[in-house]
Amino acid sequence: MGDWLEELDRLAHERAKAGLTRQLRPRSGADRVVDLAGNDYLGLADHPRVVAAARQALETYGLGATGSRLVRGSTDAHAALETALADWTGAESALVFSSGYLANLAVVRAVASVCDLVVSDAYNHASLIDGCRISGLPVRVAPHNDPDAVAALLDAHPGRAAVITESVFSVDGDLAPLAALHAVTSARGALLIVDDAHALGLLGSAGAGGVAAAGLAGAPDVIVTATLSKSLGGAGGVVAGPAAFTRHLIDTGRTFIYDTAPPPAVVAGVLAAVQVARAADDRRAVLLHRGALIAGRLREAGFAGRDPAAGVLSVPAPGPEAAVAWAADCRDHGVAVGCFRPPSTPDGSSRLRLTVNAGVGEQDFARALTVILECAP
Amino acid sequence: MGDWLEELDRLAHERAKAGLTRQLRPRSGADRVVDLAGNDYLGLADHPRVVAAARQALETYGLGATGSRLVRGSTDAHAALETALADWTGAESALVFSSGYLANLAVVRAVASVCDLVVSDAYNHASLIDGCRISGLPVRVAPHNDPDAVAALLDAHPGRAAVITESVFSVDGDLAPLAALHAVTSARGALLIVDDAHALGLLGSAGAGGVAAAGLAGAPDVIVTATLSKSLGGAGGVVAGPAAFTRHLIDTGRTFIYDTAPPPAVVAGVLAAVQVARAADDRRAVLLHRGALIAGRLREAGFAGRDPAAGVLSVPAPGPEAAVAWAADCRDHGVAVGCFRPPSTPDGSSRLRLTVNAGVGEQDFARALTVILECAP
Ligand SMILES: Cc1ncc(COP(=O)(O)O)c(C=O)c1O
Ligand SMILES: Cc1ncc(COP(=O)(O)O)c(C=O)c1O
Repeated sequence: MGDWLEELDRLAHERAKAGLTRQLRPRSGADRVVDLAGNDYLGLADHPRVVAAARQALETYGLGATGSRLVRGSTDAHAALETALADWTGAESALVFSSGYLANLAVVRAVASVCDLVVSDAYNHASLIDGCRISGLPVRVAPHNDPDAVAALLDAHPGRAAVITESVFSVDGDLAPLAALHAVTSARGALLIVDDAHALGLLGSAGAGGVAAAGLAGAPDVIVTATLSKSLGGAGGVVAGPAAFTRHLIDTGRTFIYDTAPPPAVVAGVLAAVQVARAADDRRAVLLHRGALIAGRLREAGFAGRDPAAGVLSVPAPGPEAAVAWAADCRDHGVAVGCFRPPSTPDGSSRLRLTVNAGVGEQDFARALTVILECAP
Repeated sequence: MGDWLEELDRLAHERAKAGLTRQLRPRSGADRVVDLAGNDYLGLADHPRVVAAARQALETYGLGATGSRLVRGSTDAHAALETALADWTGAESALVFSSGYLANLAVVRAVASVCDLVVSDAYNHASLIDGCRISGLPVRVAPHNDPDAVAALLDAHPGRAAVITESVFSVDGDLAPLAALHAVTSARGALLIVDDAHALGLLGSAGAGGVAAAGLAGAPDVIVTATLSKSLGGAGGVVAGPAAFTRHLIDTGRTFIYDTAPPPAVVAGVLAAVQVARAADDRRAVLLHRGALIAGRLREAGFAGRDPAAGVLSVPAPGPEAAVAWAADCRDHGVAVGCFRPPSTPDGSSRLRLTVNAGVGEQDFARALTVILECAP
């Protein structure tokens, strides 16, 4: 029975030749590397209030939720977080999932009950693409950030469609033209689904997110999803939208019904993070300032790239090997940066992916910037 | 733009008429209900060692993992848990995911690289069914627990197939004939994928799981998945199998690559739970004893049902309303039990689902048993 293993080895060999082997490099608790790779944009993962709230809930509820949300997994902490998230994002209702990935699968699948087409931005996240696939709906991929193309696709379709986009895109950090997209969808009776993963906590008044920043908070034809693992420093996902939609998810969402609820301690920590994030205009200012600073310095050094819309900065590299070498050099100098290569990049090109973390100290940040520039190819 | 919301309301109304509306009932930290509904079989969710390990990691790493396993999310805690899980289950290698659901999606999708058919047990969990769907492979549904039918399906297929089953089934608690299934698959060059969610920690020597109990630990043509949220009292998922397979998942698994890693504190808590679970023959004995006791008493009261293979007991109810009423009565008397109705039941019938929790006190357990019998329809 060795043959399937031989086939896996052959596939691994092919990936290695193409430079597509991935390495898991565990970090230790004592790791002092400056983090410009993770998504802890506001530095809340180790905020004292967040950690204290998680610790408290751990004592109260124990570690796991012990069941799905519907069976035993829903605690007061889950309900409180949902109320806080709905209030913050201006949605009628919010529903928490164990991950943003599973929230996205649920949302796209659920709209199949009321839509017969999805129009998906070409640069959408894997979880949204998988959501399209699992929904069973026909999918049209729209060119990246192109409301006219979306309008044309909708005009060619007689039924009701759902248009799916990220707000701030995860790889390149650019912002979708949400108001223009909504003008297109609402004029045509289509739904707009926005994955706000990289904008919640960062854009909009009090960090209410990219959808709120575009003036679309609470719109009855907009559904927002997000992960709780980025600016909120925790884990889990959320869907925010009309109450009729979250009710539909509670009754029929397979990744809600048949999945263990997120741990109460994580949920309580995220709730504390929401409270901190709402008041964190100072951290948001640091983030914007730092993003513009890095982008400017890289432009001076000859690297293309605009100021980031939020916390993600994408820097084109000459090729996959150069990108890997650049990132490895940075790490050897104590700075963690991301490196995206195909198939993780929507356009087949390789880049460094830098994230700005407002929690990194001033000196560390300055040193990191120097390292990135000195290691540039 | 009210029409999609009206359509959702109409669908909600239809579900209500069919008795298929689901209720989220948050429990408070002060909740003293006896839990015969959750999946904390060994009572480890609030075990002092588990809670202490999680608390410690919370202080060390903060709350969230801040990124995917590949970018920033892998910590020493993740690596240590993977080593412990591989060692415990006797697999060459183990890979941790943020949920069992996402682990299952990854596994079925990954076998599409080396297989061209999946044969899926009729009673498989939603996450496995979704995995089949997302894999894009043709799917043959095999009658429940029927190795001969599986053999016939494989014999009719010229290529390489993957056969998917649970070990202890989540709804009915019965055990798959794993040794017989493996005899069928190995003789035909097929892979066997086993979701050990409800047997890990409960069956096999030192609780190594249903696959180990069937003598299949470390078999090169067997892939094991499990959730870390049931007997281990935490959250997350794991895939255990040949190193070439977990390597394939690291390089290509979308729900691994594009998902935030489980929080270090959860991972550290689960690692402590593995250590406790390995040594918990006493708790496993209590579990078996209690399972047989409930099943016997229910049989005396005229309810069909065999002794549970592990911690799940399924009790047929006269119909969906009776099942709901029975469960509600129990809850009103301070006992939480599960209630499964279509579409959550594979055969369209309704039942009470009782889970045995070795962590429930002796007196509470006795009282719960009385309540269940007194509330019976
Ligand atoms: C845009 C986007 N959506 C969804 C997700 C998935 O969220 P989670 O990690 O909580 O599963 C991510 C990344 O993790 C993301 O970047
Ligand atoms: C058999 C089985 N597989 C997979 C899962 C999913 O695991 P998780 O809750 O960790 O997503 C569950 C239940 O939760 C289950 O019962």
